[in-house]
Amino acid sequence: MRILITNDDGIHAPGLKSIASVAAEFGEAIIVAPDRERSACAHAMTMREPLRVNEVKYQAAPVKAFEVNGLPVDCVNVGLTIGWPDGCDLVLSGINNGPNLGFDVTYSGTVAGAMEGAINGIRSIGVSMAPLSTEKPIDYEIGAIWLRENWDDLVHLDLPPLVFLNVNVPNNPPKGTRLVGMGQRVYKDRVEMREDPWGRPYYWQGGVAVLDGAQPNTDIQAVRDGFTSVTPISLDWTDHEVLKRLQKSFE
Amino acid sequence: MRILITNDDGIHAPGLKSIASVAAEFGEAIIVAPDRERSACAHAMTMREPLRVNEVKYQAAPVKAFEVNGLPVDCVNVGLTIGWPDGCDLVLSGINNGPNLGFDVTYSGTVAGAMEGAINGIRSIGVSMAPLSTEKPIDYEIGAIWLRENWDDLVHLDLPPLVFLNVNVPNNPPKGTRLVGMGQRVYKDRVEMREDPWGRPYYWQGGVAVLDGAQPNTDIQAVRDGFTSVTPISLDWTDHEVLKRLQKSFE
Repeated sequence: MRILITNDDGIHAPGLKSIASVAAEFGEAIIVAPDRERSACAHAMTMREPLRVNEVKYQAAPVKAFEVNGLPVDCVNVGLTIGWPDGCDLVLSGINNGPNLGFDVTYSGTVAGAMEGAINGIRSIGVSMAPLSTEKPIDYEIGAIWLRENWDDLVHLDLPPLVFLNVNVPNNPPKGTRLVGMGQRVYKDRVEMREDPWGRPYYWQGGVAVLDGAQPNTDIQAVRDGFTSVTPISLDWTDHEVLKRLQKSFE
Repeated sequence: MRILITNDDGIHAPGLKSIASVAAEFGEAIIVAPDRERSACAHAMTMREPLRVNEVKYQAAPVKAFEVNGLPVDCVNVGLTIGWPDGCDLVLSGINNGPNLGFDVTYSGTVAGAMEGAINGIRSIGVSMAPLSTEKPIDYEIGAIWLRENWDDLVHLDLPPLVFLNVNVPNNPPKGTRLVGMGQRVYKDRVEMREDPWGRPYYWQGGVAVLDGAQPNTDIQAVRDGFTSVTPISLDWTDHEVLKRLQKSFE
């Protein structure tokens, strides 16, 4: 089994080591990851600059590893070009150092790595650790154990082309796994204005995720309840109900 | 009507001038756009660097205009912060200098600007010029005319929250408008390897869009047939059919 691994936390991220260790148990794995942290880079693609690829020694797992001066999308496409031009069997992205729940999915570089795998016609899975507070450090081993235990299911699930999986693992041993939809995660206080030492304004974007209110059958609720969430994500973002309604009203 | 305008081609792009001219006819418009071209930046968000906002003189339309050292998502959130902290009535993104059809939507900064408007609970529309060849230069006036003529419909369409519109206008006067789904646009030869003057390899990502095969009821087919495509895009990317099937098989 040929497994391409990427992430958005960069080649030195601890979550990458965990996912690579698991992958190496199940097949021939290659890491192609950004040379630095690129969080919240979404499904962006480097088009206007050349990409450089540099093989690095990787101690944490028996895999080949390459760093790229680019984003997860770049890593997947360059990785296939240098590794398996005819495609591979699995793209793994992660393990991310934070949740990718609800609308996070739209900003996430981790999810984007899996998305690009799916666009290339390859089974793809994004994995994130989803602590609900910053009380204790992220324990990637929890994610690695979950991935190892559920490997066969994940690899053999009957998924149509262009559908990939977004996985969020809680930061405590999960009570189980729930197949769920993508919830709604809203941020408050998105932009903060500050002044530099010369009195000129600048802006930080960030904000605090608001997870209040029950969201049954979603990734957010699953993780809040202590379960690992697995969400099948489509590459057709059409709202088909709205489309049908609008088409009727336009006829 | 308060209208926030952004794009991913940057504050100096001709398509921005066209969309701003139309918007200024219908309400109070503010441009908050990247200070340079940021194509294919997707729904990325600047989190690790401060954002600077600089008011610029804008000759092409009677609007206030600000440039930001960031991406469309940043521009929408900073724009709301400096302009209308309680929200505005419409977010417009574009007019992009190329198609955003099918999977382009996942890479597009233009679409991401509209997406961020929708996440903020505001009616949002991304507009792109979609020439099917590079034979003649893009004529943004075609897009502006279409937008002006269809303004009332676009603003009054009965859309639920979190659903926004992705519009692609052909580069010839459109035969009409079709409400359609998001198609599948695959690129060939995504990554090209070259050598620098010192014989070291580097990689360009790009590729050629392949639009062969009929795709009825999609944006791709509509534009190919000479129509403007309007696609309602959802922020729930769950594949609900697959989810139901997998949940059953897991029970």
